[in-house]
Amino acid sequence: MNQLIEHIRGIVGPGGILTGEDVRSRSDGWPPVGGCQARALVRPATTAEVSAVLRLCHEAGQSVVTHGGLTGLVGGARTGTGDLVLSLERMTGIGRVDNVNRTLTVEAGAPLQKVQEAAEDAGFLFPLDLGARGSCTIGGNISTNAGGNSVIRYGMTREQVLGVEAVLADGTVISSMKDVIKNNTGYDLKQLFVGSEGTLGIVTRAVLRLRPRPRSRDTALLAIESFDKVAAFLRAMDSALGGTLSAFEVMWNDFYRLIVADDGAHGQPLDGSHAFYVLLEATGGHEESDHQRFEEALEEAFAAGLIADAVIAQSRQQREDLWAIRDDVEVMMTKLYPPMTFDISLSIPLLDGYVQEVRAGLAERWPDSRLVTFGHLGDGNIHLVLTVGSLDAEDVHGVEEIVYGALGRRGGVISAEHGIGLEKRTYLHHSRSPEEIALMQALKTALDPKNILNPGKIL
Amino acid sequence: MNQLIEHIRGIVGPGGILTGEDVRSRSDGWPPVGGCQARALVRPATTAEVSAVLRLCHEAGQSVVTHGGLTGLVGGARTGTGDLVLSLERMTGIGRVDNVNRTLTVEAGAPLQKVQEAAEDAGFLFPLDLGARGSCTIGGNISTNAGGNSVIRYGMTREQVLGVEAVLADGTVISSMKDVIKNNTGYDLKQLFVGSEGTLGIVTRAVLRLRPRPRSRDTALLAIESFDKVAAFLRAMDSALGGTLSAFEVMWNDFYRLIVADDGAHGQPLDGSHAFYVLLEATGGHEESDHQRFEEALEEAFAAGLIADAVIAQSRQQREDLWAIRDDVEVMMTKLYPPMTFDISLSIPLLDGYVQEVRAGLAERWPDSRLVTFGHLGDGNIHLVLTVGSLDAEDVHGVEEIVYGALGRRGGVISAEHGIGLEKRTYLHHSRSPEEIALMQALKTALDPKNILNPGKIL
Repeated sequence: MNQLIEHIRGIVGPGGILTGEDVRSRSDGWPPVGGCQARALVRPATTAEVSAVLRLCHEAGQSVVTHGGLTGLVGGARTGTGDLVLSLERMTGIGRVDNVNRTLTVEAGAPLQKVQEAAEDAGFLFPLDLGARGSCTIGGNISTNAGGNSVIRYGMTREQVLGVEAVLADGTVISSMKDVIKNNTGYDLKQLFVGSEGTLGIVTRAVLRLRPRPRSRDTALLAIESFDKVAAFLRAMDSALGGTLSAFEVMWNDFYRLIVADDGAHGQPLDGSHAFYVLLEATGGHEESDHQRFEEALEEAFAAGLIADAVIAQSRQQREDLWAIRDDVEVMMTKLYPPMTFDISLSIPLLDGYVQEVRAGLAERWPDSRLVTFGHLGDGNIHLVLTVGSLDAEDVHGVEEIVYGALGRRGGVISAEHGIGLEKRTYLHHSRSPEEIALMQALKTALDPKNILNPGKIL
Repeated sequence: MNQLIEHIRGIVGPGGILTGEDVRSRSDGWPPVGGCQARALVRPATTAEVSAVLRLCHEAGQSVVTHGGLTGLVGGARTGTGDLVLSLERMTGIGRVDNVNRTLTVEAGAPLQKVQEAAEDAGFLFPLDLGARGSCTIGGNISTNAGGNSVIRYGMTREQVLGVEAVLADGTVISSMKDVIKNNTGYDLKQLFVGSEGTLGIVTRAVLRLRPRPRSRDTALLAIESFDKVAAFLRAMDSALGGTLSAFEVMWNDFYRLIVADDGAHGQPLDGSHAFYVLLEATGGHEESDHQRFEEALEEAFAAGLIADAVIAQSRQQREDLWAIRDDVEVMMTKLYPPMTFDISLSIPLLDGYVQEVRAGLAERWPDSRLVTFGHLGDGNIHLVLTVGSLDAEDVHGVEEIVYGALGRRGGVISAEHGIGLEKRTYLHHSRSPEEIALMQALKTALDPKNILNPGKIL
């Protein structure tokens, strides 16, 4: 097998391949556990090199795990001692913004934040945004169909991508780098590579869709007394804000109490007695009229009895303070130690009953357990963070059975944003039927018959 | 083979299958040419019946062409004497609107207009809209990834679909009927069935995403002196209208002259001397502030020298009169007789030069040819309608070489909205590489190894 390494070195040059301690000193995901065990790490500089490397690996039956920013949360980049890592860290180019098409062409290794900045410098918005923006790469975002805070307004990563170039397991380059929205010339092949976590091909380049940069931003924190009213308020804002609604983040009382009421760090913009809190944001094209519309929409909701109390941010600082509540992951992880986190989607009308069932199930088995609930309600996506005081295998399994079991019975989704990777594979059947899983396997076999691309992930 | 028909009759009942003259008297697409030649037409009433029928056809190697509303423009539903038609005309159910999820579950045979009405009755908008709305079915819309007038605001059909149920060639039912936006649990299988024109599976049901019904609508017709200014005006409106821009329809001078200036039917809202005309529309959530924003945006564009003249609709009637210009297909088809129509997408900065090259190429070979150009510029999608005075095979081929040749050299898309079907199959290579076509073929083989689903279409 050393011969394969030598052949690859011939393609990528001496600086293009790492082995031994240079690999071991690297990570293969979060949390770091003992370094990357792969037999080598290849750093191609061009799509042609990716293609040539994959052709050799395909011939040799060599498994390949693609590495981007390594910020995934489901072990999608984990490697074993027999794997080869293909890192896109030398393919970070960002092209010029096309002002007319409103597009940006990038290489897959470009960090999300650099892509955002390039768009902003040209007067546009690249709307994908998530906490890992500084480290994650656009190729990783595409491969995992990343979500984030702006999905309600702009959609998932899938909707930000017009064209994709990807390399198949056998080295074939599929270049679908169109920069237009409409393309009904046969199968939309890029969909295969979005969200398939590096198991069907390696994304090397993409044409991204840009949006106009908002000129207005209005933010409020609302207190709401029941889940039904939260749902009615969502619908009312969706209608009244006419396409400018850009965040609808809900926090159950347990979350707000933990982060705000029981903790001094965030002041207390609203008191902690309410059942639900919603962080609402709208962004649009006209500061004055957008602000007027935002205030009128909240007045209507207040008059209709949907909201019990409200704080409207009057400055950028106040807006950031409100968002800091929603984003205070650190306090949460510290107070709920050791934490377990879940990222689920469910039909909105079923969400409240679901959370109640999970809470009751946890309390019955672990009387001292704590659970907080929050998330992107506008998308039907919530996060559960909880602790039962241990991460023993038996406890973890017990919790997963409760969380995913109650979800599967309601037809919910075990991974809204994070993907399946290694860690959720065992639970895939709660969200997908045997027929769906068999069809996924058929696609995998058709595109990667020797199972060399990120083997063992998802399926 | 009559045995197969009898077995199918056993599944769908005597009223569920037609043969002989009952089939011949039907159409298999537009324009009608000699009736449907299929050996039988099956009308299943449930997904289970579709599945059972396909299982039999798969065993027998019987080809199956799915029929919806038969409003496609590329021969995607054409049948030969050996084919079996599977019509979804008895699966037209429309479920109740889910007010909280903002979704609607429908059977594939439901006509688009009925779906729109069901959404509207519940206070929502189903944004997909096209001229054939009364006849086309939602299953056909999904299978062809239909576009239409609202793509700039809401996206193609692909983006209106949250969940799909489809039956594979061997009868396997793939039910991915989720009603949530976020679902990263493995491969997004519904993407396989959207836009694949019935070649990978038969769509039987879908969960559709609804949007808030707009409360405001502002419409204007603008005269613009150059293509660069059209492009700059598009960008300016995209930014200034802050998410409410819902139509940006461009008409070249040739179109406006033909429909308006040379014809008395539409009055003459703007004189016919300008190079380009844009029909602009914005829809939002607040009548007063949206209108203010719309007028201010146009004032800014006027001050910046982007627009030369403007008419803003002051009433519903005026708005409809402006749209009637854009939608006057009948006059166009009559004056450009016999017509040839093309539906292409291209990077916007290249569009003007492309149209000039096509015009010059046509004029050189057919000095009396006429061409008009118009379309959804906001999506990079334009339509060419032209006549060279004949539809002889040699002339048609000559025109296609000019239109698609100039397009292929610029990396354009030979079918933005209409699909490939039978009629554009020969030209697929202008838009897709050999590697892409081979991958499409691999998908087809993986999902339909006996090639029984709409064989010969697309590929």
